[in-house]
Amino acid sequence: MKVILLLACPDRPGIAHGVYGLIRRQGGNVVDSDQHRDERENAFLMRVEWETKRKGLTEKGVLAGCARIAKLFKAEHQVVFPNRKRRIAVMVTKEAHCLVAIIQAQKLGEINGHIDLVIGNRADLEQTAEREQIPFRHIPIDPEGKPAAERQELELLRTRRIDLVVMARYMQVLSPHFLKHAPSVINIHHAFLPAFPGPSPYARAFDRGVKQIGATAHYATAVLDDGPIITQETTRVGHKDALDDFIRNGRKNECLALVEAVRLHCAGRVIVYGKKTVVFK
Amino acid sequence: MKVILLLACPDRPGIAHGVYGLIRRQGGNVVDSDQHRDERENAFLMRVEWETKRKGLTEKGVLAGCARIAKLFKAEHQVVFPNRKRRIAVMVTKEAHCLVAIIQAQKLGEINGHIDLVIGNRADLEQTAEREQIPFRHIPIDPEGKPAAERQELELLRTRRIDLVVMARYMQVLSPHFLKHAPSVINIHHAFLPAFPGPSPYARAFDRGVKQIGATAHYATAVLDDGPIITQETTRVGHKDALDDFIRNGRKNECLALVEAVRLHCAGRVIVYGKKTVVFK
Amino acid sequence: MKVILLLACPDRPGIAHGVYGLIRRQGGNVVDSDQHRDERENAFLMRVEWETKRKGLTEKGVLAGCARIAKLFKAEHQVVFPNRKRRIAVMVTKEAHCLVAIIQAQKLGEINGHIDLVIGNRADLEQTAEREQIPFRHIPIDPEGKPAAERQELELLRTRRIDLVVMARYMQVLSPHFLKHAPSVINIHHAFLPAFPGPSPYARAFDRGVKQIGATAHYATAVLDDGPIITQETTRVGHKDALDDFIRNGRKNECLALVEAVRLHCAGRVIVYGKKTVVFK
Amino acid sequence: MKVILLLACPDRPGIAHGVYGLIRRQGGNVVDSDQHRDERENAFLMRVEWETKRKGLTEKGVLAGCARIAKLFKAEHQVVFPNRKRRIAVMVTKEAHCLVAIIQAQKLGEINGHIDLVIGNRADLEQTAEREQIPFRHIPIDPEGKPAAERQELELLRTRRIDLVVMARYMQVLSPHFLKHAPSVINIHHAFLPAFPGPSPYARAFDRGVKQIGATAHYATAVLDDGPIITQETTRVGHKDALDDFIRNGRKNECLALVEAVRLHCAGRVIVYGKKTVVFK
Repeated sequence: MKVILLLACPDRPGIAHGVYGLIRRQGGNVVDSDQHRDERENAFLMRVEWETKRKGLTEKGVLAGCARIAKLFKAEHQVVFPNRKRRIAVMVTKEAHCLVAIIQAQKLGEINGHIDLVIGNRADLEQTAEREQIPFRHIPIDPEGKPAAERQELELLRTRRIDLVVMARYMQVLSPHFLKHAPSVINIHHAFLPAFPGPSPYARAFDRGVKQIGATAHYATAVLDDGPIITQETTRVGHKDALDDFIRNGRKNECLALVEAVRLHCAGRVIVYGKKTVVFK
Repeated sequence: MKVILLLACPDRPGIAHGVYGLIRRQGGNVVDSDQHRDERENAFLMRVEWETKRKGLTEKGVLAGCARIAKLFKAEHQVVFPNRKRRIAVMVTKEAHCLVAIIQAQKLGEINGHIDLVIGNRADLEQTAEREQIPFRHIPIDPEGKPAAERQELELLRTRRIDLVVMARYMQVLSPHFLKHAPSVINIHHAFLPAFPGPSPYARAFDRGVKQIGATAHYATAVLDDGPIITQETTRVGHKDALDDFIRNGRKNECLALVEAVRLHCAGRVIVYGKKTVVFK
Repeated sequence: MKVILLLACPDRPGIAHGVYGLIRRQGGNVVDSDQHRDERENAFLMRVEWETKRKGLTEKGVLAGCARIAKLFKAEHQVVFPNRKRRIAVMVTKEAHCLVAIIQAQKLGEINGHIDLVIGNRADLEQTAEREQIPFRHIPIDPEGKPAAERQELELLRTRRIDLVVMARYMQVLSPHFLKHAPSVINIHHAFLPAFPGPSPYARAFDRGVKQIGATAHYATAVLDDGPIITQETTRVGHKDALDDFIRNGRKNECLALVEAVRLHCAGRVIVYGKKTVVFK
Repeated sequence: MKVILLLACPDRPGIAHGVYGLIRRQGGNVVDSDQHRDERENAFLMRVEWETKRKGLTEKGVLAGCARIAKLFKAEHQVVFPNRKRRIAVMVTKEAHCLVAIIQAQKLGEINGHIDLVIGNRADLEQTAEREQIPFRHIPIDPEGKPAAERQELELLRTRRIDLVVMARYMQVLSPHFLKHAPSVINIHHAFLPAFPGPSPYARAFDRGVKQIGATAHYATAVLDDGPIITQETTRVGHKDALDDFIRNGRKNECLALVEAVRLHCAGRVIVYGKKTVVFK
């Protein structure tokens, strides 16, 4: 059995000692570990990966042991079993590039996950999903029907035991209720946050005359484009770049930032602490 | 005589033809030219560099010819004689790195300009300037004395025939009156504008959890950190970067962005059009 | 009619004048122009784009006019009619990522070209091509049968009037005879040339301990991995990147460099002069 | 007392356990630790930083404990006491920019080290060093006098207890004898190694038509430009960049790569293992 534990908590002596003690008690052999103290936040941040062949040890047993440690140190924590692929649902509208990029990354084995479902508020990308044998569900959103649509989506996520929702240029705002009941949600925003949150960021970047454009993958929270940032990509632009060139170059940033964020998440390399992510590379 | 003409105006037929006609009439041989139409802005943007040996032709004559063309096409324009170095005044407070970077760039011949004066609202960098034989003037700014201090500064700029003012981490806001009467002013802001304008951008970037930090060189306008952007630099950061690492890496971005902006400006490669710069590389 | 002329030749007075004269005589209105003198090479380099509504003017007439100018100045030149999409053949072996990237770029309208044919020396990517309605031809290469296979390929390129051949991780060396008779051929090499030409560059880069890996798109010539470079991309790597991570990150570099090279080529922005390309951005 | 231990050895069970045991026995509290297994090299790589207030514990005691561990696991290892600044000698010829960059970095507190000496085979940079109160020694190298000159240099390094030699565009090849008897030597090569080793790399990069130039900081070994790479920086170039622009942009890469390499070395973040460095960031 392989296990990854991510831990983030207020720093105090003995945390690493406690973690290593647990690993030893469970017969683990540490393969990779990374531990850091953030002085400004007074935070202890750790990622540790181990293997164990202890007979009779179950995932449930590992989870319980880690939960005890986390409770003891008042830690945010996350346990990942790398031999289990994450089950991913991708939400889309009509732009294909981010969806295609994630599908390709999965096919190349870059992501420790499996796209189990694509949900579109429009039907444009149905064929893109289905020719890869990924079920596509068209759930239109109209203003008054949004709560019902979101209930339907949550039901789907539950039924299919989805671990991760990826908003791949999904042009709808998810309600706080949805976010509360969904598993982790990663969104790609086509700007270098916190610059240009909200709609039409490329046009606004063009009109402001920036010399680099960007894209930001982040966990979605109830406040639009304000969640913990996972990855950011930037590209230089100049006066010969028309708005279409901003959009074209931007697509590359979006694909790179989103695929990398999904990859890191599925590899058990990201934990949220406070308003920020800690990304162990 | 070498001449560079920068021109930006609403597009209409015949502009390039008009410019080339002028150059021909003045005996010019075009060395380098770059002309572009920005469709979104409906703007005609041009930079052309020529040499002429026409007897009797004076800089005044060239300026008059270019002004006529500019007036005809309602163009923003700028004429640069590359054999004349720009006279630069650098304004500083206490951080040395940007000043040192500009001085080094000048000594290496990277900038077609000459630092003629350093003005500090504190005296910390007096020695840094003077050991390079650059006159340093200490002009403290206290709230009620600011108008008088700025008058003194403007007088200095006038007396020394300064072409370009560079705010090299100058920790004061220049008044609209100063900006109106000063020559071009380039400022370095230690953030990726339009994100984090105003004070303490690194601390705010740290607390927001961005994954790249940036610096922006721009022409100063009456609205703080809102002027036309000339250059932007970015660097990746992660959870092991403390605030001090943000600041350390940020200094590199600041030096790179500011020196490059000053170099481009002095090379006659930047023109402001509307709220944006056009940078001919 | 829209026309792009690319021109590169030894510098001497009057070249631009000659070009503008031709454009004027053919009723052209210059939309975009970029002209530069390379002092080290003593080269005159120019790209100019114009529109004309002159009645009776044919593409043949434009081509003849440009050829006359080129001959007069002993220039390498290239004429592109942007309203005609380039016809592209992609050569592949078994790795899909570059082919998929080019197909996506075409579907998004990023490339002024159309993939007319995929040739594989293996059949692995047949389905990838055909589900996009692109004909796939399987032409195996065995050592003794290579000349016959290449004749078959050349015949295909001729029949389908292919303008551009793209080697998208095609794991065969093209013979000088093929290269002589084929149209322009762009190859992607998965290293930062001139470092690591030839086979297994990622493994060699890993073993050398480089801190950045790269990819290079270049025109193929008779000398392996030695042709004029069009684009290069790089990415940082560290000791936690296994060889698989080099390969994974490398794929992104390859896709970015190759798609951009194809885009620039099809946009009439690249001309070969001597052993180098001139890329007008 | 603060201690950093760097360790690299063939992987086998129990190494981390051994290290943590030592730290515990010496009363240490781990502040930061980073441990990784490189499967291709079958290498165990570790950096761990701890604090201890154990009474009576001396640096000698720590060194002995670490040496025992290293011997046990046949490990390359390095012990750094971060409260001791490294003593640096910089070797120069006539180009100032790298020397100035290191001096500035030291003055800003970016480097956990102190420039104790500048050695020039020419006297050009004497003033640059001395106005910073850094002793400058002019040791000319002529072909037949090289062994004597190097003996003089080695004697200086010994007398001044230098920990690190930095070749800051020092235009001489150090002999194997010198390298054997000198402490660590970091060199900056103005190319993206392994491309363009040896002289005039910018001119060769220009003539090859590369689209990015680079600089590489590496430990000097007896084979020219072949030592373990610490850092690499790259910058895009195009056809409008003359050779002088390559050199100008290259200087920035050189300063960034060299200062970062010196910073990382002095922070105890680099260990050589085989032909490569492991850089813990």
